[in-house]
Amino acid sequence: MPRKIIIDTDPGQDDAVAILLALASPEDLNVLGIVAVAGNVGLAQNAENALKIVELSGRTDIPVYAGCARPMRRPLVTAEHVHGETGLNGPDLPSPTIALEDQHGVDFIIETLRQEEPESVTLCTLGPLTNIAMALVKAPDIASRIAEIVMMGGAYFEVGNITPAAEFNIFVDPEAADIVMRCGAPLTLLPLDATHQVLTTRPRLDALAAIGNAAGAAVASMLEFSERFDLEKYQSQGAPLHDPTVIAYLLQPEIFSGRLCNVEIELASELTRGMTVADYWHVTDRHKNVTFMRSADAEAFYCLLIEKLKKLP
Amino acid sequence: MPRKIIIDTDPGQDDAVAILLALASPEDLNVLGIVAVAGNVGLAQNAENALKIVELSGRTDIPVYAGCARPMRRPLVTAEHVHGETGLNGPDLPSPTIALEDQHGVDFIIETLRQEEPESVTLCTLGPLTNIAMALVKAPDIASRIAEIVMMGGAYFEVGNITPAAEFNIFVDPEAADIVMRCGAPLTLLPLDATHQVLTTRPRLDALAAIGNAAGAAVASMLEFSERFDLEKYQSQGAPLHDPTVIAYLLQPEIFSGRLCNVEIELASELTRGMTVADYWHVTDRHKNVTFMRSADAEAFYCLLIEKLKKLP
Amino acid sequence: MPRKIIIDTDPGQDDAVAILLALASPEDLNVLGIVAVAGNVGLAQNAENALKIVELSGRTDIPVYAGCARPMRRPLVTAEHVHGETGLNGPDLPSPTIALEDQHGVDFIIETLRQEEPESVTLCTLGPLTNIAMALVKAPDIASRIAEIVMMGGAYFEVGNITPAAEFNIFVDPEAADIVMRCGAPLTLLPLDATHQVLTTRPRLDALAAIGNAAGAAVASMLEFSERFDLEKYQSQGAPLHDPTVIAYLLQPEIFSGRLCNVEIELASELTRGMTVADYWHVTDRHKNVTFMRSADAEAFYCLLIEKLKKLP
Amino acid sequence: MPRKIIIDTDPGQDDAVAILLALASPEDLNVLGIVAVAGNVGLAQNAENALKIVELSGRTDIPVYAGCARPMRRPLVTAEHVHGETGLNGPDLPSPTIALEDQHGVDFIIETLRQEEPESVTLCTLGPLTNIAMALVKAPDIASRIAEIVMMGGAYFEVGNITPAAEFNIFVDPEAADIVMRCGAPLTLLPLDATHQVLTTRPRLDALAAIGNAAGAAVASMLEFSERFDLEKYQSQGAPLHDPTVIAYLLQPEIFSGRLCNVEIELASELTRGMTVADYWHVTDRHKNVTFMRSADAEAFYCLLIEKLKKLP
Repeated sequence: MPRKIIIDTDPGQDDAVAILLALASPEDLNVLGIVAVAGNVGLAQNAENALKIVELSGRTDIPVYAGCARPMRRPLVTAEHVHGETGLNGPDLPSPTIALEDQHGVDFIIETLRQEEPESVTLCTLGPLTNIAMALVKAPDIASRIAEIVMMGGAYFEVGNITPAAEFNIFVDPEAADIVMRCGAPLTLLPLDATHQVLTTRPRLDALAAIGNAAGAAVASMLEFSERFDLEKYQSQGAPLHDPTVIAYLLQPEIFSGRLCNVEIELASELTRGMTVADYWHVTDRHKNVTFMRSADAEAFYCLLIEKLKKLP
Repeated sequence: MPRKIIIDTDPGQDDAVAILLALASPEDLNVLGIVAVAGNVGLAQNAENALKIVELSGRTDIPVYAGCARPMRRPLVTAEHVHGETGLNGPDLPSPTIALEDQHGVDFIIETLRQEEPESVTLCTLGPLTNIAMALVKAPDIASRIAEIVMMGGAYFEVGNITPAAEFNIFVDPEAADIVMRCGAPLTLLPLDATHQVLTTRPRLDALAAIGNAAGAAVASMLEFSERFDLEKYQSQGAPLHDPTVIAYLLQPEIFSGRLCNVEIELASELTRGMTVADYWHVTDRHKNVTFMRSADAEAFYCLLIEKLKKLP
Repeated sequence: MPRKIIIDTDPGQDDAVAILLALASPEDLNVLGIVAVAGNVGLAQNAENALKIVELSGRTDIPVYAGCARPMRRPLVTAEHVHGETGLNGPDLPSPTIALEDQHGVDFIIETLRQEEPESVTLCTLGPLTNIAMALVKAPDIASRIAEIVMMGGAYFEVGNITPAAEFNIFVDPEAADIVMRCGAPLTLLPLDATHQVLTTRPRLDALAAIGNAAGAAVASMLEFSERFDLEKYQSQGAPLHDPTVIAYLLQPEIFSGRLCNVEIELASELTRGMTVADYWHVTDRHKNVTFMRSADAEAFYCLLIEKLKKLP
Repeated sequence: MPRKIIIDTDPGQDDAVAILLALASPEDLNVLGIVAVAGNVGLAQNAENALKIVELSGRTDIPVYAGCARPMRRPLVTAEHVHGETGLNGPDLPSPTIALEDQHGVDFIIETLRQEEPESVTLCTLGPLTNIAMALVKAPDIASRIAEIVMMGGAYFEVGNITPAAEFNIFVDPEAADIVMRCGAPLTLLPLDATHQVLTTRPRLDALAAIGNAAGAAVASMLEFSERFDLEKYQSQGAPLHDPTVIAYLLQPEIFSGRLCNVEIELASELTRGMTVADYWHVTDRHKNVTFMRSADAEAFYCLLIEKLKKLP
């Protein structure tokens, strides 16, 4: 039976690829809904982008919700310098014909977790953790009903991208991240350490473009746009590909390796705010709350991605 | 036309007196609903206490809601050492016959603010600010629709009670307080500076007991219980009476005096967490966001309280 | 036998009055030396001011040392807006004919404490605590040889002056203050709570001017200059007089009352940096390290001051 | 003409190797003095260890000073779990026959910098930065006279060793590190990123033991002792060798590569205290104050070390 998941996201080119990968895998993943959150760009744009991706996938049966338009206590920081003004620059996707659900995304998460069997629903987060944290504060009973929260975010050895110490998703709403890290549910983190190992090299982009369907063309176009920022910054052959690692982990966990350790979120300091302080070497006796993925098998990852995207229209 | 208010509360003996004062003043105050929050004791007990007080007042038409059971990111700290195990020790009030509404208190606040005329509803907060902050994050559009938020909480010259630097209501959920302080709505704060000037002296307690109705007897009994903690701590003639100052301010603002100044909430430091740093002397150029009440006319306050409570059954 | 003291100071009009009060009391106080520190103005100016005051007192046998020119880790903040450009605006004092000692002030403190009998030397601090803290770090053995450290600085119910949460002397070098508060020597603090009770009212200034000697005239002139800032800020009848409370405490401790409690220095937060968090109500079980003076007998204080200043030339 | 250096150190096996490497290189390095500081073990033991190493090198003309016995504001944290009880466990070195100088190490640093030509003296630090920071606070004029400060300490991609976020030397006295990082002198940092690339593999230890003189035997014995901790922790083939990288950098800077970037020290947060936040990717516009060495040529490093140690008795 396919695993039930909710995707919480701020698309974002790499979010889009992750959503497509999930929607291309119905035999393994049952996407109960997609919830937008403010992050890469504002909420309204992110929600529209989510609708566009759902249409591109042909899976217009998937309900899309708008969640929170702002982080819990910080002013919203966005990343148009990476993703472009629409958050999804690159391909020219048509305006969506489907519409957002009326229910607030936070309430969809709460209601779904209460209605489905305990520990049967996995939350997949591709952006700031605002919606998940808001659901946990509003309805603390849901914490014990979550099967797992699999998150793209944070970094340890790769340290940071938006600041020297912090990764973007966590930095945007560090209080939300802190709430999630302490919630008691099983947590798996796909940090920069893993995502910087699955680079969008030229041959991989070419292989994506060569799939021959609309999804492949859009993905290649999106990643060519978004990689420009990282190529210049890191002077590397290919940019990291972040959010699809979350879905790839659900499909083939053996692509990634890491260890269970303590992860705490830095909130007190302006200098290091939003850092995911991972006790990877177990030098403290803090509670081991997160499976922290340090490495990824890039070849296996791109094989999986291309194989799955082929199934889309 | 009476002013529309929502009372957000964690009763608490002094919350109970505040609620009774509001419900005794229908010509001035239209109580749209009462929302419970975790604080003095846990949410379930606070919600039950709110129901008991509503019954005591005879106003069983007032809907009561349960809000958040936990602060936004801190473990809940409660104050049974002050208020007793039930949060409402003192009188022997019967179990409530009325029931809580089904809707979550946070959603009641959002829905009410959206349905009523803009700037027509005042939020009165007698406990931690969790529900208000959650509403503001979930639905940022409501900020501009709030008439005023009148809050019991914080301190400047009286500094703190639960810690050397922090007052209880703010300390319990400082992130929520920070969100509220920055929300842009008109804010009025009734801090310890004001509440420590309206002491429950023996003659005042006697006058409350002498009112001769059930409400007066219950109030006298509640305050005799709760004052014991402060009498011992401060070695004073009478304990501060906190929450009713919020309602008294709505009824007779001239009882209080203070000034508009900047108030920020300390979040970064373990030592001073939850402090309401008020720039009372205007030594900085920070935004003046709060009317901070520094003093109160105790005689006028108790006159008002006794006169109003006489109207209850 | 008079009590041996070292005066550490950043004169400052009120420092000047304190030094004159000490030098006018040889039967009670044996001033072993005066050490300048950066604070109200820069070190060079403060050191020159100390020399001027010593000359004004006629006690040119007192050695004067220059200590540290900067706080331990913060950029120097000065207070010319209060004290004037020279730090000692008001009277027209002649350039000093005596010179600074060659030895660094920190080394003078260390050497004196090591040479004199254990627990026979009291440190009197009228400015930032840089020199004392530097001596304690460089030579930790001196901590147990200090009789007492009597300090003007900090505040609790008066909260702050340079910021909403911090008093100037502590704010300028909070790390130094933290080191001193933890050093284990007997500590007495004369905070704003006490100094705001000994106001420079018009009759008191007139009485100082009427003493009839050079010191009295200079003191009256200095205080008329420096009070202007506080009169405007607090709209009060007279400004607080800070540093002389330290010497008055040594001469007549019964002028002041307070209690032994924990005092910690806020260092982690930008908002409250330099706050002296006093557990005046004993709500924590932190170590009671400081005698915190909350109130002062203003009449007795000015009587003492005038009586002593009469003895100067 | 050989470069004039002062070595500030808390020996420590790897400090010892660094000192021996410097003393074995008189044609390149003129060691003006060695100053001990509290760190790996207490000051008295570290100072004795420094004397032992000087004797082992045969260079008993080198003066050794004791500096500060405690960090500026933190309680001393030591590392006997790595270095053994003496800080120098491994070889059986005789008690020193030479003695410490009388002068305090901080004053030796100040006096030397003032006496020698401006920008002619390089400070080499192998332990916490207490002595250097104390000299800078006591005598700010020396900052502009320092040729360079070359430091072993900190980490960015390797993140931390004593805590998940901090390297030991910086963690022990982060305030001192902060003062040094802001002092304006040219700064070069040899962090864990570099030292974890020069591992004490078995063939390298064998080559050191095979040198055939007393120094080589002692070095091999010391490193076999100290590597045990890291081998177990990292499950690696050989432990990092830290402090000798400072001296190797002076002798052959081309062994190391890195870049000029901003480095700030985390002080505000308990969680990340002592972190060296390096803006290695230049994502901020903070002042570029440190040459941060990210990598090292391990073969060249060990060639240099062995070649130089051969010259010792």
